Amino acid sequence: MPNPTAAILVIGDEILSGRTRDANMHYLAGELARIGIDLKEARFVPDEHAAIRDAVRELHARHDHLFTSGGIGPTHDDITAEAVADALGATLAIREDARALLAAHYERAGLEFNAARQRMARIPEGAALIDNPISIAPGFSLDNVHVMAGVPDIFRAMVASLLPRLTGGEPLLSQSLRIDRGEGVIAGPLAALAAEFPDLGFGSYPFVQNGAYGANVVIRGTDRARIDAAMSRLSALFADEGA
Amino acid sequence: MPNPTAAILVIGDEILSGRTRDANMHYLAGELARIGIDLKEARFVPDEHAAIRDAVRELHARHDHLFTSGGIGPTHDDITAEAVADALGATLAIREDARALLAAHYERAGLEFNAARQRMARIPEGAALIDNPISIAPGFSLDNVHVMAGVPDIFRAMVASLLPRLTGGEPLLSQSLRIDRGEGVIAGPLAALAAEFPDLGFGSYPFVQNGAYGANVVIRGTDRARIDAAMSRLSALFADEGA
Repeated sequence: MPNPTAAILVIGDEILSGRTRDANMHYLAGELARIGIDLKEARFVPDEHAAIRDAVRELHARHDHLFTSGGIGPTHDDITAEAVADALGATLAIREDARALLAAHYERAGLEFNAARQRMARIPEGAALIDNPISIAPGFSLDNVHVMAGVPDIFRAMVASLLPRLTGGEPLLSQSLRIDRGEGVIAGPLAALAAEFPDLGFGSYPFVQNGAYGANVVIRGTDRARIDAAMSRLSALFADEGA
Repeated sequence: MPNPTAAILVIGDEILSGRTRDANMHYLAGELARIGIDLKEARFVPDEHAAIRDAVRELHARHDHLFTSGGIGPTHDDITAEAVADALGATLAIREDARALLAAHYERAGLEFNAARQRMARIPEGAALIDNPISIAPGFSLDNVHVMAGVPDIFRAMVASLLPRLTGGEPLLSQSLRIDRGEGVIAGPLAALAAEFPDLGFGSYPFVQNGAYGANVVIRGTDRARIDAAMSRLSALFADEGA
């Protein structure tokens, strides 16, 4: 059975304007590879209702899971919950369990549980909460859409809360070999080898170091023995040629 | 007149698998903001023909410019040129000026100009070359699609070659203010201020430092005087409240 597929939608003007460099996509990609969910697509959109809604609709229909990052805080630019509810045709309202969690948190902290903070208790009908051990305001899973905070520490904590609930497939394994020759030399033999192992993925990632060209060749798949076999062939190919 | 809009399409299995963290989107976002082209969307897709072609078709129709990163080297997984040509209905063939550039480069380096390297001279009909001062193999602009290499040094060099050709709009300016209070306190007054300045963008980016909550509030726009005016109001709001 093929692995489940996923997309991530990163929401926020600050990333598209170049002010902030996103860290959540790369983090999630690594976590999903580990549990055998294949990240097939990532999108970044601004804090605009229609852009978020349309991307959610398209990606949730196309993949087994859609993860979102950003836009669930208390300020006016936090519009992800509305847009996700709109995309999936769910109603959005203050939910009692989320409200109670937040009320208790702000009471302990001696802070007012004001209208802005109460916005964070608005959860689409039918969603399951995603625990936020850091700042309490929960994320949520609605159908196959998992809505999480953009602040990297909180995003990671929510991913840790969420992933044990999801059913993965075979973890994606990989091995890489550094070859100190230009890709132009590597390309022919590598393509021939890739054709012999159609069940594996072969990638070549060039670099320049001290003026010399090389590439890291990565072989990916879910069967360790097959990757080992392909890697032995790859090493032999370039060991021979170098002799 | 509104600024031109743009999207970036980042191509490569290595990013979606979590092996490599992309740097090109963040770099391009900053460069475009400087010249007044608004980056409205980013997408990441794997090295798959249909995924690249469909994303190119959609994004080039929706924006004034589409920039792509990755997949134009000599190896079998470098399929961006074919996919872009397919998306735009152009033919792809070895082009004499690109071939001559590469032939001279490999001759100087004493390297064979083999079949794999000749693949890098395949350019869609009607495209303009994008200069690559680092490893010579050019990128290209076909219609409003600008195809560049994924290796960060080469991507940056190509961006530097390309941007002077493009017509920008008003540069995106921004100022930010660090406010050492939780977003829940900031949210109400900030939303009211944002409503008074509908021509500006207001973003709030929370952080946690030594257990205390705060936020960087960013005001963006193209009119420096308006941003100054809004920033003065913002400072006064929170100075007053703190007194």
